[in-house]
Amino acid sequence: MSAKIKIIVVGLGQIGIETCKLILQKKSFNLLAVVDIDPSKADKDLGEFLYKKKIGIKIFNDLKAALKEFQPEVTILTSKSRLSEIANDIFSCIEYHSSVISSCEELLFPFKKNKSLAEEIDAKAKEYFVHVLGTGVNPGFIMDTLPLFLTSICSDVKSIKISRVVDLSKRRKALQQKIGLSLTKSEFQKLVREKKIGHVGLLESAQFISHYLNFDITDFDESIKPYLADKNYKTKFFNIPKGTVIGMKHTVIGKNKTKKLLELILEMRADIVKGFDEIVIDGNPPIKLKIENGIFGDTATVAMMVNVIPNLLHARYGLITMKDINIPSFLNI
Amino acid sequence: MSAKIKIIVVGLGQIGIETCKLILQKKSFNLLAVVDIDPSKADKDLGEFLYKKKIGIKIFNDLKAALKEFQPEVTILTSKSRLSEIANDIFSCIEYHSSVISSCEELLFPFKKNKSLAEEIDAKAKEYFVHVLGTGVNPGFIMDTLPLFLTSICSDVKSIKISRVVDLSKRRKALQQKIGLSLTKSEFQKLVREKKIGHVGLLESAQFISHYLNFDITDFDESIKPYLADKNYKTKFFNIPKGTVIGMKHTVIGKNKTKKLLELILEMRADIVKGFDEIVIDGNPPIKLKIENGIFGDTATVAMMVNVIPNLLHARYGLITMKDINIPSFLNI
Repeated sequence: MSAKIKIIVVGLGQIGIETCKLILQKKSFNLLAVVDIDPSKADKDLGEFLYKKKIGIKIFNDLKAALKEFQPEVTILTSKSRLSEIANDIFSCIEYHSSVISSCEELLFPFKKNKSLAEEIDAKAKEYFVHVLGTGVNPGFIMDTLPLFLTSICSDVKSIKISRVVDLSKRRKALQQKIGLSLTKSEFQKLVREKKIGHVGLLESAQFISHYLNFDITDFDESIKPYLADKNYKTKFFNIPKGTVIGMKHTVIGKNKTKKLLELILEMRADIVKGFDEIVIDGNPPIKLKIENGIFGDTATVAMMVNVIPNLLHARYGLITMKDINIPSFLNI
Repeated sequence: MSAKIKIIVVGLGQIGIETCKLILQKKSFNLLAVVDIDPSKADKDLGEFLYKKKIGIKIFNDLKAALKEFQPEVTILTSKSRLSEIANDIFSCIEYHSSVISSCEELLFPFKKNKSLAEEIDAKAKEYFVHVLGTGVNPGFIMDTLPLFLTSICSDVKSIKISRVVDLSKRRKALQQKIGLSLTKSEFQKLVREKKIGHVGLLESAQFISHYLNFDITDFDESIKPYLADKNYKTKFFNIPKGTVIGMKHTVIGKNKTKKLLELILEMRADIVKGFDEIVIDGNPPIKLKIENGIFGDTATVAMMVNVIPNLLHARYGLITMKDINIPSFLNI
C-alpha cells in the first residue's frame, strides 16, 4: 500500500459529519482537517462533534488556511446544492492542487445549466492537474449512473423511465424542510416559483443520461407538485396538519419532437410506508429493475463520495462526471 | 468524430453473428472481416449468413491472415468458454497489435484458475500496448460487475447473495445442450465430474467480486445439481421425458472461517414460467434489487461486447477486467 491519501472535508452538517466518520474508518485515508463556516466551531476538535472526545483533527473556519497548511490530495465539499455557491471553494481547492469531490447536486452534470462556470472549472482543473467530480446517490447513482450503466447490456434503447419514491418521514430534518413539509399549498407554490423547493439535481440527472445516450431531446419539462395531507400527521421534526404539504412529486420529462425519451419521477412523502426505486428501460433486451424499500439516501451519498476517491485520482484531469471514472465499489481498505 | 474503429469478429456461432449485425449498425465502427474455423465458410461473404446478400466482408478460416491483412484495433473473440482454448488466438491478436474483447467466460477474471496464462497474456498485452478484456452478461454483468457497482453506495458490506433464474426454454440450442437437457441423472452427473456441464464463469464471477471487495474468503464451494422433469416436456430443440434433466442449479459459495460472505446461485430450467435476477446486499444501506423476467442473456452479451469497445480503448494496457474500465453504456453512435 502506498502512502495514505490526504483528505479535507468541508461542511459539518449531517452529511459532512458522516463523511468524516467513514473516512476515519479507512486505513488508506488520512483525514487532516475539517472546515465549517460556523464561527462557534472554529479551532475546536472534530472529535468533540463526532465522539465527544478529542481526536486531534482541527476545525477551520477558513478553507484556504486549511488547504495551505495541509495540502490535501482530495477535498470533499458537502456544504451546498447550487454550483454557484461552492464555485469559490472549488477554485480555492484547485489553486492549492487539491482534487474535489462534492455532493453539490448541480455538479453532477453542470455542462448545461451552469455551462460557463463548468467550463471555467474544467479549464482550471486541467491547468492544475486535478480532478473535480460531483457525486452522491441522487444525483450521482440511482436516477442517472445506475440506469446509464444498465444500458450497457442493451443493443437498443428507446426510452427510460426512472421512479424514486422516498419515505420522507425517516429522513433528516434539513431534507424534510427542503421539501416544504407542513407548508400551505400556496406557500409551497411560491417557494417553487422562487426555486427554493424541489430536488436540486433532477434536471442534471436527466441531462447526464441524455448526453451519454445521445438522445435527441429538444425539451426538458420540469414540474414540482405538492401532496397534501389527508389527515393530521407528524414526523420526528414536523407537525403536518390536514391539508398542508406532506410531500412532493418532482418530474423531469425529456422529449424530442415526436415522443417521450426520458422520464424521471421523484416522489418524497412523509405519508407512505414503503419507498422504492424503479428503472424501466424500453430497449433490447427490455429491463425492469426494482429496489425494494429504495436506497436510503443519506448513508449512500456519504458512501459514494468516500468509495469513489481512488477512482477519482485515476481519472483524467478536469471537471469530470461519473461516466469518466472506473466502475467504483465498496472500499474495504 | 475521429476515424472509425477497425474491428474483426472471430466465431460465427449465434453470438458471433449477432455481434457482427450490431457492429454493422454502428456508424463509428468498421467491421473489416470475420473469422470462423469451419472450412465450408472460408472465403464466403459474411452477408450471405446475415442477410442472404453480399456485403463485401470476407470470411477467413485463418485469424492470422485476417489480422495481417486488416490490422484491426479490436478483435472480438466469441468462440470458446475456456481460456486455454482461445489463448493462442489472444496471443495472435496481441502480436498484430489488436486489442481483444471476448465472451470467453474464464477471461472475466482469470487470475486464479488460469493464473500463469493470465500473467502471460497480461505481460504480452502490456508489451504491445493493447488491452484484453473478458465480458458479457454472465459472467460480465449481472452476477459480478452490477453487484460490485451497487456496493459503491455502501459504507459497509457484510455479505452478498446473487440469484439468477433463467427460463431455459427460450434460450438457444447450444445453451440448452450445455445444461444437459433430456439427459438421465447419471449421464448429467458423469458430465459434471468431467467438467463438461455447468455454467462456465460462475466461479470467476465470485472470485471477481471477492477480489475487489477484499473479502477474506478461504474457500469457494461449487456444486452443480440437476432438476428432473416431473412430467414430459418439450422445448423447441429437445424432448424431455419425465425423470430426465430439465435444468440445473449451479452454486458457488464463498466462506471465511466463520461465515458465508458470498453466494451465487444460477438456476437454468426449461420448466419455469418467469425468470428473474436478484441481488441482495447485506450492508449499510442494505440493498435488495430484483429484475423482473431476468436479463435475456444472448442479446445482452452481444450488446455489452460492442458497447464496451470505446471504454476498452481508453483503459490501461494489459489484461484488464470490467473494474478497470470507465462506466459503459449503450453506444448510440
